Amino acid sequence: MVKKNKTPITGITVSKDEDFSAWYTEIINKAELADIRYNVKGFVVYRPWATISIKKMYQKYEELLDKKGHLPLIMPSVIPESNFMLEADHVKGFAPEVFWVSEAGSEGERLSERLALRPTSETALYKMYSYWIRSYNDLPFKRYQSCQVWRYEGKMTRPFFRGREFHWIEAHNCFATEEEAIEQVKEDMEMTYKMLQDEFCIPIIFFERPQWDKFSGAVNTYAADALMGSGKVLQLPSTHLLGQNFSKPFNVKFTDKDGEERFCYQTCYGPAISRIYGAMIAYLGDDKGLILPFDLAPIQIVIIPILIKGKEEIVMNKCREIYKKLKDIYRVKFDDLEESPGSKYYRWELKGVPLRIEVGPRDIEKKQIVTVKRHDGEKAFIKENELDKYLEDVSKKYTNELKKKTLLDFESQIEVCYEQDSAKEAIENGKIVCCGFCSIDMEAYQCAEKIEKDLGAFVRGKRVDHEKHEFATCLICGKPATCTIYIAKSY
Amino acid sequence: MVKKNKTPITGITVSKDEDFSAWYTEIINKAELADIRYNVKGFVVYRPWATISIKKMYQKYEELLDKKGHLPLIMPSVIPESNFMLEADHVKGFAPEVFWVSEAGSEGERLSERLALRPTSETALYKMYSYWIRSYNDLPFKRYQSCQVWRYEGKMTRPFFRGREFHWIEAHNCFATEEEAIEQVKEDMEMTYKMLQDEFCIPIIFFERPQWDKFSGAVNTYAADALMGSGKVLQLPSTHLLGQNFSKPFNVKFTDKDGEERFCYQTCYGPAISRIYGAMIAYLGDDKGLILPFDLAPIQIVIIPILIKGKEEIVMNKCREIYKKLKDIYRVKFDDLEESPGSKYYRWELKGVPLRIEVGPRDIEKKQIVTVKRHDGEKAFIKENELDKYLEDVSKKYTNELKKKTLLDFESQIEVCYEQDSAKEAIENGKIVCCGFCSIDMEAYQCAEKIEKDLGAFVRGKRVDHEKHEFATCLICGKPATCTIYIAKSY
Repeated sequence: MVKKNKTPITGITVSKDEDFSAWYTEIINKAELADIRYNVKGFVVYRPWATISIKKMYQKYEELLDKKGHLPLIMPSVIPESNFMLEADHVKGFAPEVFWVSEAGSEGERLSERLALRPTSETALYKMYSYWIRSYNDLPFKRYQSCQVWRYEGKMTRPFFRGREFHWIEAHNCFATEEEAIEQVKEDMEMTYKMLQDEFCIPIIFFERPQWDKFSGAVNTYAADALMGSGKVLQLPSTHLLGQNFSKPFNVKFTDKDGEERFCYQTCYGPAISRIYGAMIAYLGDDKGLILPFDLAPIQIVIIPILIKGKEEIVMNKCREIYKKLKDIYRVKFDDLEESPGSKYYRWELKGVPLRIEVGPRDIEKKQIVTVKRHDGEKAFIKENELDKYLEDVSKKYTNELKKKTLLDFESQIEVCYEQDSAKEAIENGKIVCCGFCSIDMEAYQCAEKIEKDLGAFVRGKRVDHEKHEFATCLICGKPATCTIYIAKSY
Repeated sequence: MVKKNKTPITGITVSKDEDFSAWYTEIINKAELADIRYNVKGFVVYRPWATISIKKMYQKYEELLDKKGHLPLIMPSVIPESNFMLEADHVKGFAPEVFWVSEAGSEGERLSERLALRPTSETALYKMYSYWIRSYNDLPFKRYQSCQVWRYEGKMTRPFFRGREFHWIEAHNCFATEEEAIEQVKEDMEMTYKMLQDEFCIPIIFFERPQWDKFSGAVNTYAADALMGSGKVLQLPSTHLLGQNFSKPFNVKFTDKDGEERFCYQTCYGPAISRIYGAMIAYLGDDKGLILPFDLAPIQIVIIPILIKGKEEIVMNKCREIYKKLKDIYRVKFDDLEESPGSKYYRWELKGVPLRIEVGPRDIEKKQIVTVKRHDGEKAFIKENELDKYLEDVSKKYTNELKKKTLLDFESQIEVCYEQDSAKEAIENGKIVCCGFCSIDMEAYQCAEKIEKDLGAFVRGKRVDHEKHEFATCLICGKPATCTIYIAKSY
């Protein structure tokens, strides 16, 4: 663990660049985001500071989904085993991850049928869809729910990043034609860019996943990888083209305009809000602590009095006056604890409060207010009568400034490779490798396994946006390349 | 089943007064609020029309809790058996209702410890509280979470009213003194009145529950009974004084100002939003369908064109114009389907849309707009240039009008009884009985059992607000009365 110098006890003591893992653990604890002491493996408590931001993220996402014509619903969180078993690939993929409710009551009486705690809701929902969808008039049929899901996760868990219970939104849509389903996948990707990049300031790029890495039961999976810096990526929302793979076993049919019954084409989309929150704090944070987009901060502005003997009253009054003026517009905290201003600065920087207002006796004399922005440390001296305007300006620009600073240039992280050795070196140097590949169909799985084994990295798939590169041969097997893929380490 | 005359197929065919149960089932189906066809007993799907209102109810409740100094958090939904067993009375009360997660993975591997799907979160939270609360500075400590809970319910389930999974908010608070805990209970009751009566238009009254009917593990339970009309009550939010019953086994201590360690005094409060929603639609609805408070309606205003041959274009254009003007202020629907205006009236009345706007060619000529309010059927002819003002007025007053109409006079429903025979008759006549009682402590349980057996009704407890009546003897055993109680049938 690399210790930083001169950090107060309340602050972060580890450098993010030197030891991400220790830094992340410290920020989780010290900013009071989650508590890992809950005594069930893989389950953590989300504390208020995280919960407030997560709720705001939900709200933003839900508003966008509503706007795009989705309606919300609430499904039971248990799925009867008989439903769960209907789509074979889906079962194969998810069965190892299911928690089963199998007993109830004080005697632990065995239930007549085991109930899966939903790992995802296709098999719960689509049976209902078969009741609700009757004719082409009912299509497109777009629904979502905000809920938690449970997965008996084998991999190492880390608060927000990966756990056995996480909080997401799942949207499930039905269409008359494959073309409309494909259009929905595109809309999902656009929504993801809008939310992740514009609102949460996390740079992403969409890949069409190889067949061996798609959602169980899907025709195709398109997943956003967050660029976490130093070549490591984190899978964030993914959207899936399900074709008729589920509509057939679940009997999701509609009567078309010509009177014929047809199976729907389906898509589903699953932004894991708690995971996106983890990515956001991990990606935006620095060695002082959290950095948060303005809208998501539980407290947006903190007012800190600089007390000098004999002038306490005048300073406290000015703070109260400012607080009163701002409290109906922003989420403001007046920190009037008996503590040095320095400690307060550290605490609220650690918590990621976007703007600090300092009020001292000399500033009052000059009729000015000192402000400091968290994300760039920029200090400003604002005329008292211009404070409203300044804050309005900050509230509008803060997130955008943050975004500009943090949106990585994807191209600069890529290294184009023609040989395994150079690819290996690139991965070791924290780059994302771009190379030719034989195929992203199952037949190429062996080449992908070799990459995992030799490079310690994973095939992320084909870029969904415009591909600039072309290769003659597969990096691994040397056969003619059918596609260009990207390889990266992942969280 | 009593059939009403002349009801269109889309409308409700049963009278609420004549057959509440059948009426409720119809409204659930026809207004598309819930679907009971989900194939697990006691679990239902909440459809969009209900989900949207429920989300708005959550939002209002959360805002109020935030304002009262509570902070939100998110707990795991499973509780390890060892936590769950720590408070004896609590276990005794809840163990029969617990669903157990006991297996995981495709082979159904047995978990090392069974996990309870939370029936309520005391035993999950308070272990965490023992980590978080250190000194008197941390108190009062007020937290809540919005979540679902699961109960292996033996009683008959009914969508929203009672199910094996329901959606609530639970607030859990810690204080240094018993007095502060009692103050919190009072605050909870005030919040309940504000939400239930002012926002959701459901008349309630608070009772101190008898000891045999309190929350398992509590010192005292104060529960709101909704007055559903005809003497039948429905238990809605309850708040519980826990004393130190949980803080001792869970070790929730603080260091007081004098340096001494003391156990906290605790309270908890649990408004079941999905149940309140059920109560609201049941209580406010009429034989035409739903009636909803203005803020909670998924659609607040519906615009319906009255088409007359040759004038279609002019009417449709006017509708579009109005829609465009209103859509950023209200949740508005322009119903432009090819269907008779009458069918549309029925459908949106059934759905409880608060205001209907009718636009016909003659109204356009007169530069007027016809509006009809759902809750009282009041028709108004509004000058086109006064529409904005009129709608603003309706949006402000609608819920209040509804509340005034629906808040029952509690006193008028009560019958004061001195003898068992008259009490029996009063209950049969749909009254709430007020009488003398020996005690609400456990020792009086036999008298309560006799009431249940002979009257088919339940002791609701002592009124929390001012009690006007005094009795010399217990209605049942004839011993000297120590209190005045209320007896009612309940849902």
